[in-house]
Amino acid sequence: MSQLNGEFFHVSVPAPHVYLIQANRAPVNAFNDNVWREYSKVFEKVSLEDEVRVVVLASGLEKFFTAGLDCKSAPHPMFRYRLNNPVDPARAAFHLGHHIKEFQHAIAAPERCPFPVIVATHGIALGLAIDIIAACDVRYAASNTSFSIKEADVGLAADIGTLARLPKLTGNQSLVHELAYSARPFSAVEAKELGLVSKVVEGGRQEVLNAALAVAMNIAEKSPVAVMGTKRLLLHARDNTVADNLDYTAAWNAGMLQTADISEAVASVRRKRKPIFKSMNAQINRKADAKL
Amino acid sequence: MSQLNGEFFHVSVPAPHVYLIQANRAPVNAFNDNVWREYSKVFEKVSLEDEVRVVVLASGLEKFFTAGLDCKSAPHPMFRYRLNNPVDPARAAFHLGHHIKEFQHAIAAPERCPFPVIVATHGIALGLAIDIIAACDVRYAASNTSFSIKEADVGLAADIGTLARLPKLTGNQSLVHELAYSARPFSAVEAKELGLVSKVVEGGRQEVLNAALAVAMNIAEKSPVAVMGTKRLLLHARDNTVADNLDYTAAWNAGMLQTADISEAVASVRRKRKPIFKSMNAQINRKADAKL
Amino acid sequence: MSQLNGEFFHVSVPAPHVYLIQANRAPVNAFNDNVWREYSKVFEKVSLEDEVRVVVLASGLEKFFTAGLDCKSAPHPMFRYRLNNPVDPARAAFHLGHHIKEFQHAIAAPERCPFPVIVATHGIALGLAIDIIAACDVRYAASNTSFSIKEADVGLAADIGTLARLPKLTGNQSLVHELAYSARPFSAVEAKELGLVSKVVEGGRQEVLNAALAVAMNIAEKSPVAVMGTKRLLLHARDNTVADNLDYTAAWNAGMLQTADISEAVASVRRKRKPIFKSMNAQINRKADAKL
Amino acid sequence: MSQLNGEFFHVSVPAPHVYLIQANRAPVNAFNDNVWREYSKVFEKVSLEDEVRVVVLASGLEKFFTAGLDCKSAPHPMFRYRLNNPVDPARAAFHLGHHIKEFQHAIAAPERCPFPVIVATHGIALGLAIDIIAACDVRYAASNTSFSIKEADVGLAADIGTLARLPKLTGNQSLVHELAYSARPFSAVEAKELGLVSKVVEGGRQEVLNAALAVAMNIAEKSPVAVMGTKRLLLHARDNTVADNLDYTAAWNAGMLQTADISEAVASVRRKRKPIFKSMNAQINRKADAKL
Amino acid sequence: MSQLNGEFFHVSVPAPHVYLIQANRAPVNAFNDNVWREYSKVFEKVSLEDEVRVVVLASGLEKFFTAGLDCKSAPHPMFRYRLNNPVDPARAAFHLGHHIKEFQHAIAAPERCPFPVIVATHGIALGLAIDIIAACDVRYAASNTSFSIKEADVGLAADIGTLARLPKLTGNQSLVHELAYSARPFSAVEAKELGLVSKVVEGGRQEVLNAALAVAMNIAEKSPVAVMGTKRLLLHARDNTVADNLDYTAAWNAGMLQTADISEAVASVRRKRKPIFKSMNAQINRKADAKL
Amino acid sequence: MSQLNGEFFHVSVPAPHVYLIQANRAPVNAFNDNVWREYSKVFEKVSLEDEVRVVVLASGLEKFFTAGLDCKSAPHPMFRYRLNNPVDPARAAFHLGHHIKEFQHAIAAPERCPFPVIVATHGIALGLAIDIIAACDVRYAASNTSFSIKEADVGLAADIGTLARLPKLTGNQSLVHELAYSARPFSAVEAKELGLVSKVVEGGRQEVLNAALAVAMNIAEKSPVAVMGTKRLLLHARDNTVADNLDYTAAWNAGMLQTADISEAVASVRRKRKPIFKSMNAQINRKADAKL
Repeated sequence: MSQLNGEFFHVSVPAPHVYLIQANRAPVNAFNDNVWREYSKVFEKVSLEDEVRVVVLASGLEKFFTAGLDCKSAPHPMFRYRLNNPVDPARAAFHLGHHIKEFQHAIAAPERCPFPVIVATHGIALGLAIDIIAACDVRYAASNTSFSIKEADVGLAADIGTLARLPKLTGNQSLVHELAYSARPFSAVEAKELGLVSKVVEGGRQEVLNAALAVAMNIAEKSPVAVMGTKRLLLHARDNTVADNLDYTAAWNAGMLQTADISEAVASVRRKRKPIFKSMNAQINRKADAKL
Repeated sequence: MSQLNGEFFHVSVPAPHVYLIQANRAPVNAFNDNVWREYSKVFEKVSLEDEVRVVVLASGLEKFFTAGLDCKSAPHPMFRYRLNNPVDPARAAFHLGHHIKEFQHAIAAPERCPFPVIVATHGIALGLAIDIIAACDVRYAASNTSFSIKEADVGLAADIGTLARLPKLTGNQSLVHELAYSARPFSAVEAKELGLVSKVVEGGRQEVLNAALAVAMNIAEKSPVAVMGTKRLLLHARDNTVADNLDYTAAWNAGMLQTADISEAVASVRRKRKPIFKSMNAQINRKADAKL
Repeated sequence: MSQLNGEFFHVSVPAPHVYLIQANRAPVNAFNDNVWREYSKVFEKVSLEDEVRVVVLASGLEKFFTAGLDCKSAPHPMFRYRLNNPVDPARAAFHLGHHIKEFQHAIAAPERCPFPVIVATHGIALGLAIDIIAACDVRYAASNTSFSIKEADVGLAADIGTLARLPKLTGNQSLVHELAYSARPFSAVEAKELGLVSKVVEGGRQEVLNAALAVAMNIAEKSPVAVMGTKRLLLHARDNTVADNLDYTAAWNAGMLQTADISEAVASVRRKRKPIFKSMNAQINRKADAKL
Repeated sequence: MSQLNGEFFHVSVPAPHVYLIQANRAPVNAFNDNVWREYSKVFEKVSLEDEVRVVVLASGLEKFFTAGLDCKSAPHPMFRYRLNNPVDPARAAFHLGHHIKEFQHAIAAPERCPFPVIVATHGIALGLAIDIIAACDVRYAASNTSFSIKEADVGLAADIGTLARLPKLTGNQSLVHELAYSARPFSAVEAKELGLVSKVVEGGRQEVLNAALAVAMNIAEKSPVAVMGTKRLLLHARDNTVADNLDYTAAWNAGMLQTADISEAVASVRRKRKPIFKSMNAQINRKADAKL
Repeated sequence: MSQLNGEFFHVSVPAPHVYLIQANRAPVNAFNDNVWREYSKVFEKVSLEDEVRVVVLASGLEKFFTAGLDCKSAPHPMFRYRLNNPVDPARAAFHLGHHIKEFQHAIAAPERCPFPVIVATHGIALGLAIDIIAACDVRYAASNTSFSIKEADVGLAADIGTLARLPKLTGNQSLVHELAYSARPFSAVEAKELGLVSKVVEGGRQEVLNAALAVAMNIAEKSPVAVMGTKRLLLHARDNTVADNLDYTAAWNAGMLQTADISEAVASVRRKRKPIFKSMNAQINRKADAKL
Repeated sequence: MSQLNGEFFHVSVPAPHVYLIQANRAPVNAFNDNVWREYSKVFEKVSLEDEVRVVVLASGLEKFFTAGLDCKSAPHPMFRYRLNNPVDPARAAFHLGHHIKEFQHAIAAPERCPFPVIVATHGIALGLAIDIIAACDVRYAASNTSFSIKEADVGLAADIGTLARLPKLTGNQSLVHELAYSARPFSAVEAKELGLVSKVVEGGRQEVLNAALAVAMNIAEKSPVAVMGTKRLLLHARDNTVADNLDYTAAWNAGMLQTADISEAVASVRRKRKPIFKSMNAQINRKADAKL
């Protein structure tokens, strides 16, 4: 387990099959390049664990989910380019574009994780916080959370996923536009109205974490084949037509319906006992392949 | 009329131009292959009726909308394959995939019906119930409805339309993911919050049916050309870009605006009388063509 | 400024960088071809103004946002075709299709405007009103607004943008279908529930206008590079997959992140003063190019 | 076998696993509604045969592949509508649109057939002939074939598949446009240059049929899992981005690679013998399911 | 007619219904902003002519189709920005992007023209020449034509349509990439191999023009409803899936099949006479509407 | 340079800015997991080299481009799963799907490389060879090349890119289907007819390599901003509509047109000298960032 921990993220297993990733970069969980590179790697490692079935993402700091980009410590390479070198604008654009795509890819790690990722937010959640949250599956907020799509305040459009995902996640495009243009803070209640989160938990860090762990433990008891397939198909549905998704679903389930989990689930209902499912990675661990 | 009735679905015309399809497979409206094949055929037949303009879908049973797939009576062919025959996994996948697509196609019947389909749900609505509801145009729930995306509980991802359509229908993707992973029951009020239904009617079967019939009777008085075109264009908009939909709309309405319904509608306003529109099928019945 | 005014629309600048366009065609702001052609032109002109950063759209009439199409004064060319000339249906369709596309293009003017467009609705908002509102970025309604997707009542499907955009803007597809089929009036509160507007302002014309101007003034203080990019990327996200939008965003921001606005924003935070940004058009006015 | 024959199409099995469908409606294989309804049904039945692996489509008439639509015998229902009944243009459009979609669906039958369909053309191939050919997988022409996209000569755009598929099949869009506008005849050699056919066989009906059967027999010896998957994935690739197709392919092959055909193929290479594969339908015949 | 002529383009009607647009900006038909703005307007005007059915595009100069962008006379506004004003890179990008889109829109004029556009190329055809050609329907080249995708030689990617359209027009993506990277000249024969043109006419300007006019005159005799619909549907097919195009086609032809051209075409065949069709604009001239 | 070499691939710089990658895994360049993992890494490293502008891919073996998958040495992990462990089919599918996606990603490395990749094929090129070739930009074949889409012969559909890319690259879909179903060998000449390669070079390994290097040296002299942008935009065009590509192009070039390469190119023409461009990576090396 310990080798899953990084410099900025701490991984634990508070319940069977439930992996908890907590950001721990005091004082405000600010993200520089090293932080988001580690963020992505932690998700990749957790996804390969033998017994993982659900992931919970939270902040280990009492007052901050994250204050977003780290503008202080080390200047962002995007800006060092132009500060230190009078570069050709096209060559600067080439490198900035490359950097943005790497950053987007890292923050999309929860989407690439085959298992559900539940995010529990509390306290201050600014700028990059929204990009991070939007890439998770299930989103809970403590009532003390204060959100803001802060980017417009620093002269840039939110390019790490907020603008890409928010219009697909929510049911009030007008509110999305207003919040993104104005960078004004919004509460957990407004976040729920917007559809950014699905539950407001009264309290702060501990309360929302408990609620997230509760739903995670519930999901961890289901068939991993069913849960993982559901994630894959829901993400596909977001970006495709109904007809294309139905076709993809048929291709996907043609293989997956041959699982033993279905007979186990049916048997458990008949015999009035809890079903026992195997994890996805336990039997055939992909890490073995990597060593080939 | 009577020839529209099937073994499991009963068709009536409770008001002019309003066709009511009621599922009647006691005790719980469980669906096996025969049931969903008939379901599809009933919609096809109703769509060809001379005077049809709106369809209402409901359950004729007091306590159940539907409990979903019939796991008891006859084992589902998906599973018979593997139970009775040790078959090659690829050949099994070929046949399973074919079966899923046929099933999806049947449950999408309300979408292929050119006229609005209003579904009235009450009581227990599990598993396949959500696939069925999601393919209807207007969705009302009695306050006593208990929904559940039950599939994860039996080891499979909901592959008959729930996962394809829910992300397009609703405004809270986080809630969709949570409900699909956890299979937990949710109430009519939460269904409305989710955007799965647009109205919660206090009461049970009769109350929600009355509300659905009321809106159906209202729609039945409108120009069928306008209503049918609206359905076509809204479904197209769901799956296409705004630009593509506007172009399709122009192609569609270039023909449809030549209708006499517009002058009738304008005239009725001027003369302060109700407009009188013809049904779509009455004059040129497609059934005649089939006999050619 | 005065040359921005048209016959039917009045333009003013109630606050720095905030342009207000008010419809003034008494008694009910009915739209004929001349009105929507001017509507589109006013937006194009305002978009080229040196100092524009935000646009507010409202009605100058006390009781009406707009009653929609002008069916009385001059018969719509669509119908003149068939009334005056017994024309070949295919040739009529050719010209009707062309006319619809021109009309759609005019009403989409707020989408083509590079700056945010905030619409403030009040009073009667029928038919074309919804097409107009749906093409704006941020949508506020006075509590006295009465909306209706009126088209079904006059025998046609709403083809100028309502059906194309509503399914993308809102989180309750069932309600969209019901409102579009039934043409029933709905209140500001229901519009907010639907996601058509993001704020209901207690009162009428003046109150909602004040609220819209307040948010506009807030946005006008942000970096125009950030705000304009945000609009572009959000509209792109609506119509593309997450992956495609992330790629487009990287291409877009590779150029935009080279702006001086970012250092200005960062500097202003450090020095605790308001940032000072340049407008997009001021320095390089495109009108000069046109004269080439 | 005999029950596969229809009134207009004759089915035979000239080689193991190779089904030959020949059109036999003297004198010119003209298609009316009954003919294309049977065309579609023959493909559906053949697709369910126990031992089918490849299908060859040809004409049984010496001089005609097909002269296209049957304009003589029975007037097409499209036109009867307007000839016999002065109908509302919108209602006529509703029924015409429905009819076109049914017709398109029937002619697309070779695409829905899971097995490769090889078409052998000769003699006269006009109008609908091109729609039919374009929906097949592999296309051979006898050197005596004379093609024409005849529709422009009778006042309509080719709407049964020619215009939809040609731009995807060929590598000279300019030539496609010219041929579709001018309705001029083009030879087998020009068809090959265009990419409509991949082989010109010197001679007429018998020669091209022999060549098509030869390639069919070759394909019939391959693993049906490989061949059927190849067809599915190639058709998907035609209509999707490379990224989407790669993702679909992974979902598809995740199930299919579990087949025993791979070990059989590998073993046969090692042991220098012909591999022996099972057909897709033989073991688990879907017709059994239908009887459930 | 004369009012169709511009400063740089000359319009004539060499045969009934055939409009010929010739570029006449000696010495090399170089394009500056004024030239492409007029180019677009000429197509718009010609499209509205009463009797237009086909358009032919050619150069009036003996040795040049076009040498592409005019780099000499007036510096391109894109570059004046940066030369004369040290501007913020983001604001420069905003205006450059706007300018590119206007330019692209102008060069796409042949695509927006509802009638077929046949381009006849000869002599030197560099850079923008390829963007122009690629937006036409049918493309003929004199054997003396020398083409080059010249843009890479001046430090930019061809952004006015060449890179967007070539991959869809041709059947050899490898050759497209090579020609676009290397900017090397290629002959008419190689252009035909590539699929950029469909016919190489031995000779120069006059010979290729005669060939283009011959095919134009042939097309001009067909039903304009059929030809115009064919263009619309082929362009739609290029950018959409087969399924989407078939659906669009059904919507389009549901209106168009009600034309009298079909009975006229059928009657002419029976009576062995030439059919007589009306032009699209003659009866209902859209220019009248504009005056409203 | 030497650190670019791997175990199976050798990298050299035969001309300024031209990087040559040669596969050297005697006797037949068979690919196992280690080989394709290194293949991907070599491309990533070369893409970051200071002076890279064009990449050439070839085989260092005299008789083989590649014989495809290595079926002999180590059994493919796909098959080890099932051989050694009787695993649940759904869990096997999960891991197989993951493995296919990793493999596809590795073989797509030339597409992710920002610079043109020219592939020179000769000798035997089977199975995976086609997946590899299809992901390169410019494709040349020695006349002695023998190709085959071999996968159908071993019981699987070609899932590493052949089926995804071939339909987009070529202009004869019928031939693609035939070759993929039949696995028959095809010559360099047929490959050119198909559009898989754009040039057949008389001879073998050395001859085709010389031809590829010649075109690479030509491209290496062009503006890297122009060439790299051209690649990006052509790949985008392959997978998007013309309208979407034009919009993306405008966003891309809005930044890129600010390059100094354009003035350098223009100046060099005026002064009749060769232009001197900087490489993309030289000035701002991304490897520095990685160390941050």
